[in-house]
Amino acid sequence: MDFRLEDIDSAEVDRRLSIVEPLADSVRDLIDAVIRTEVDDADLLAARGRIDAVVDALRVRQKEGAYGVPFTRDLTGMPWGNAAVGARNAVAPPMRVVHADGAATAEVELGAAYEGPAGRVHGGIAALLLDQLVGEAATMTTRMPCFTGTLTVKYVRPTALGRVWLRAEVIRTEGRKKFVRGTIADADGVTVEADAVMIAPKDMPSAAQIREALGTAPTAE
Amino acid sequence: MDFRLEDIDSAEVDRRLSIVEPLADSVRDLIDAVIRTEVDDADLLAARGRIDAVVDALRVRQKEGAYGVPFTRDLTGMPWGNAAVGARNAVAPPMRVVHADGAATAEVELGAAYEGPAGRVHGGIAALLLDQLVGEAATMTTRMPCFTGTLTVKYVRPTALGRVWLRAEVIRTEGRKKFVRGTIADADGVTVEADAVMIAPKDMPSAAQIREALGTAPTAE
Repeated sequence: MDFRLEDIDSAEVDRRLSIVEPLADSVRDLIDAVIRTEVDDADLLAARGRIDAVVDALRVRQKEGAYGVPFTRDLTGMPWGNAAVGARNAVAPPMRVVHADGAATAEVELGAAYEGPAGRVHGGIAALLLDQLVGEAATMTTRMPCFTGTLTVKYVRPTALGRVWLRAEVIRTEGRKKFVRGTIADADGVTVEADAVMIAPKDMPSAAQIREALGTAPTAE
Repeated sequence: MDFRLEDIDSAEVDRRLSIVEPLADSVRDLIDAVIRTEVDDADLLAARGRIDAVVDALRVRQKEGAYGVPFTRDLTGMPWGNAAVGARNAVAPPMRVVHADGAATAEVELGAAYEGPAGRVHGGIAALLLDQLVGEAATMTTRMPCFTGTLTVKYVRPTALGRVWLRAEVIRTEGRKKFVRGTIADADGVTVEADAVMIAPKDMPSAAQIREALGTAPTAE
């Protein structure tokens, strides 16, 4: 595991999210608009020039490489560059996952950017969201992120673009293996089923051990 | 199948792509910059305002709903909104698929926007690209797009962000079912394996039948 700690509290996390979430949402809007626009070529060229200027302004100061998964001082992960749930990543819908009652669930609006067959959700986007969700369901029961061993996705019928509902839960554990079942449903019911074998890391340090290794003071939790 | 025909030739396709591909590439740059930027909040807010202005300009005239998969007069599909390969869709890397020698192959650069675990390709992004590629491998042997029945993805080891190589080919056919094998490799070898059962559509009309149904004149091919 690659640990990076940012010594910030949850109020600072919320403050940062209040800036980057709307920014990523604006980029999502832009992705959608570029797919669907019917303005003429001159306007498309002008749009490109304006986008490039924004990119230049943002790249004046930037992180080397990918965002990674930094942790806050209370060891909350900030996977803000994640392709399925990243708050800063406009590739992600993003999926907001709720962990409750032993299940990971999410409700997501999938627009034009997630199309495969005409008017339908891309089968691979269904797999992307399910891979993330089964991982989160497995991780709920451990302290450290689990990795996907095998993901089997069964397409029951096409998923209409629009609002979809996802659910995943661990159905069995065998040593470090967790067997997780996930589903996607559109307004007419379940469209995609997934079965995953997730692998928990060999050594799962306690929160206290991680803090000690990082040389940070324990916080009052 | 939902058919939409645009009565344009390959020269007009190329002309349109020469405008929209660089535009989508600029949006990809923007997605990456928003993930990695370290400019201050005022600059982030300013960027958002400028992006919203571009969105407004593009939405002055736009298609209702998703892009769909229109066909040219010589029945070449234009899946430009596709989440894995769409030329207009900045969610897509995009993957450029080569069909040759019975296999579908692609070489793709996966940057910060495709991250899952720190520094690694999101397992679901691997599934997205493989789902598209096994579909294209199956479709090479039919006239109409095949749909994924089941996709099984086995994660051999984590895939490093950066350049990856993909390959898929049909290994067996049973009636309308095609069994397709796909792989992803990074610089150090194969990282992900996929097995898919693809389903060909029940009725596969000939190109001439499609043209007749659409009321278009046959072209000299």
